[in-house]
Amino acid sequence: MAQKPSIPKGTRDFNPEQVAKRNYIFNTIRNAFETFGFQPIETPSFENSDTLMGKYGEEGDRLIFKILNSGDYLSKANEQAYREKDSNALISSISEKALRYDLTVPFARYVVQHQNEIEFPFKRYQIQPVWRADRPQKGRFREFFQCDADVVGSSSLWQEVEFIQLYDTVFSALKLEGVNIKINNRKILSGIAEVIGASDKLIDFTVALDKLDKIGEEKVKEEMLSKGIPQSGIDKLKPLFTLSGSFESQINGLKGILEASEEGQKGIEELAFINSAISALGLTTATVQLDVTLARGLNYYTGAIFEVSAPESVQMGSIGGGGRYDDLTGIFGMKDVSGVGISFGLDRIYLVLEELNLFPEAVSRNIEVLFINFGDKEALFSLKAIKQLRLKGINAELYPDAAKMKKQMNHANKRAIPFVVLVGEEELNSNTYTLKNMVSGDQLNVTLEALVDKIKTF
Amino acid sequence: MAQKPSIPKGTRDFNPEQVAKRNYIFNTIRNAFETFGFQPIETPSFENSDTLMGKYGEEGDRLIFKILNSGDYLSKANEQAYREKDSNALISSISEKALRYDLTVPFARYVVQHQNEIEFPFKRYQIQPVWRADRPQKGRFREFFQCDADVVGSSSLWQEVEFIQLYDTVFSALKLEGVNIKINNRKILSGIAEVIGASDKLIDFTVALDKLDKIGEEKVKEEMLSKGIPQSGIDKLKPLFTLSGSFESQINGLKGILEASEEGQKGIEELAFINSAISALGLTTATVQLDVTLARGLNYYTGAIFEVSAPESVQMGSIGGGGRYDDLTGIFGMKDVSGVGISFGLDRIYLVLEELNLFPEAVSRNIEVLFINFGDKEALFSLKAIKQLRLKGINAELYPDAAKMKKQMNHANKRAIPFVVLVGEEELNSNTYTLKNMVSGDQLNVTLEALVDKIKTF
Repeated sequence: MAQKPSIPKGTRDFNPEQVAKRNYIFNTIRNAFETFGFQPIETPSFENSDTLMGKYGEEGDRLIFKILNSGDYLSKANEQAYREKDSNALISSISEKALRYDLTVPFARYVVQHQNEIEFPFKRYQIQPVWRADRPQKGRFREFFQCDADVVGSSSLWQEVEFIQLYDTVFSALKLEGVNIKINNRKILSGIAEVIGASDKLIDFTVALDKLDKIGEEKVKEEMLSKGIPQSGIDKLKPLFTLSGSFESQINGLKGILEASEEGQKGIEELAFINSAISALGLTTATVQLDVTLARGLNYYTGAIFEVSAPESVQMGSIGGGGRYDDLTGIFGMKDVSGVGISFGLDRIYLVLEELNLFPEAVSRNIEVLFINFGDKEALFSLKAIKQLRLKGINAELYPDAAKMKKQMNHANKRAIPFVVLVGEEELNSNTYTLKNMVSGDQLNVTLEALVDKIKTF
Repeated sequence: MAQKPSIPKGTRDFNPEQVAKRNYIFNTIRNAFETFGFQPIETPSFENSDTLMGKYGEEGDRLIFKILNSGDYLSKANEQAYREKDSNALISSISEKALRYDLTVPFARYVVQHQNEIEFPFKRYQIQPVWRADRPQKGRFREFFQCDADVVGSSSLWQEVEFIQLYDTVFSALKLEGVNIKINNRKILSGIAEVIGASDKLIDFTVALDKLDKIGEEKVKEEMLSKGIPQSGIDKLKPLFTLSGSFESQINGLKGILEASEEGQKGIEELAFINSAISALGLTTATVQLDVTLARGLNYYTGAIFEVSAPESVQMGSIGGGGRYDDLTGIFGMKDVSGVGISFGLDRIYLVLEELNLFPEAVSRNIEVLFINFGDKEALFSLKAIKQLRLKGINAELYPDAAKMKKQMNHANKRAIPFVVLVGEEELNSNTYTLKNMVSGDQLNVTLEALVDKIKTF
């Protein structure tokens, strides 16, 4: 009854090297989060369906993984839906729980549920997997990690400034130099829509504008026209498409376009504040760029919108993003809590570091020394040394079986272990160890003390 | 449409302090795993149902969380089961995936699937959550982490020796002194069953024997009798119930009982080998004890069986366990791969450390310094210092809003932040910072350099 083993599509096994590389990224992000004052929380992998459903639009609802109720789940099945074999209508009566779709909604739920224990403003970070029943494709998985940092309970723009610094800190620590942090503001988008007479079509307008990079000015205009935005309004967009130069000169250009919109002016002010603070503080390796086409499709942003793209030499979509949302906890009954946050895209960052060969060589904590096993007496003698090595934090192990020496040496080679130690009768009698450097081939007969020293200082 | 937020029963939110404490345990275990030469792997949260179902017995199958297929899942529903509204029979036709129930079966699947990439013997560790639809109760959750280390591809008893050392290393590092590592061997249990004429009732026999601690000798005998084990056999158990003294003397007692069983003798040999190696190597704080009643209910152990109990001062079940299984990968078509492994029970270890007050005070990486916000000019000046502090690895933040000073100081107090820095007009003009120690109340006016120094050496 042997089964051919496999894993569900869109999911992955990670081998030791991959886990080590992923942990290198996680640890770098975590470390930066903590120096910036963010504190970790964790929420359950599954939430009550009520908590998640209806928060991500119709498409999102479809992509949420539902967990079948335990026991005789059909006993509570909605009768009409069951009779009509209506999959969609039946769900809520046979499934009460669903896998987390992102970290933002569970965070909002957490804040509302624990509001009396939380000291606001609350800076939290969360690094956990999420699940989406999306069609798997290159770089898109059904299970993947999100790394989010958010602040709730303050509308201060200093947060936006710090998030840009945080992006710069993380990517500089990862030696990924030259990332581009694009920034926009929902109020700019609203202002433009207002000015061109498309306030009631803000979503259609931003969705079309967001495609400027991909499809070009003419196609964007066509799409806007097809969505019912008047030609007279679209004509007013001309200066927008030709905005260029420094952050400051783009801001000046926007001032003209948005003269008639109070909200637009507010957006400009916010962007200018952030830009001047960042200029004064300086960034290590990242650059900041104003991008008025940036909308990130997400409807809940109310202020700043961020997106980070990899250095130009790499073909890769965004490797991070975020923004300000003024009423996220409102869906759970807690009004007027402003939040702002950013996210790091682990899988894409991994691919970029791989492509640019930026993972440190020592990222995987391999075994440093393997003791060859020549039999029980020698093994016991070896384990005494191994115990001392481990106490010094050195990763050491004994080959478990007294197999042929060639087999054991091959094992060391295949695993790229830098040192082996040989203990035979001679060493046993002289209370010494023979240390072999697997790279140079050098061999030394040493005492236990010298052995520890040699390996520790390698 | 406000919803009162809650989480599914048996699941938990973890606040920053809890996450920090859990990570302290995870990191200690991970560190020990790595010095012992184990390497990390990770597997997907859900597996194909085929991989999991039928591996944990009927009860286990019931407790596995099933994921509803996406889309029009009823279109492929088994017609007869649907007609008969048979929940159980319907499952496999509407659910193809299920949440991981433990880490052992996914590991076996991983080994078989990746056997050509793996260099054996393979020492892997895995720290990931698992899910069980068990009735929640104190210390039992529907989502919890397992921390497993296993070796596959060697039947050497040195592994058993190393696992005992590993338990000792982890619990000593956690300052949890005096844990008791109980050890038994399935061959001893089989041998005894053979000697008393109950070989065909090995499971009934071990299940009853396992209860000796809880229900006492007489009740155990009654249960055996009721399961059809002959009185004449039960009479032979007398010396077993009175086994006592050191590991060695118990082994000598067992030799007499098991004289007639070849398998039993083998079990004794194995135990004696392990015990003599451990005696020679020494343990730091743990003790090892032979416990012939130990069976751990798990039917797949074929050799050593381990269980760790907390120090006697704490009322807590086992905090770890494991053993040797000779054919785990057989279920996936790969024969004759011997494995041995142990597991750490995170949640119980957490409760024990909490009860004994063993978490280090500095376990949670709190903010070390909060800068009071007196306005935008002062905030910008503060952020220049904060940037330097963070570069030195100091957790620092700016209060985001220029709120009343009392409110900001309260915030620092509530979060137990040890230092605050005050930057007003005076400091701005003199290019200095006023550092206040929140514990002593002392205040100092210092340069940026001195500020970094003071906080770093605190």
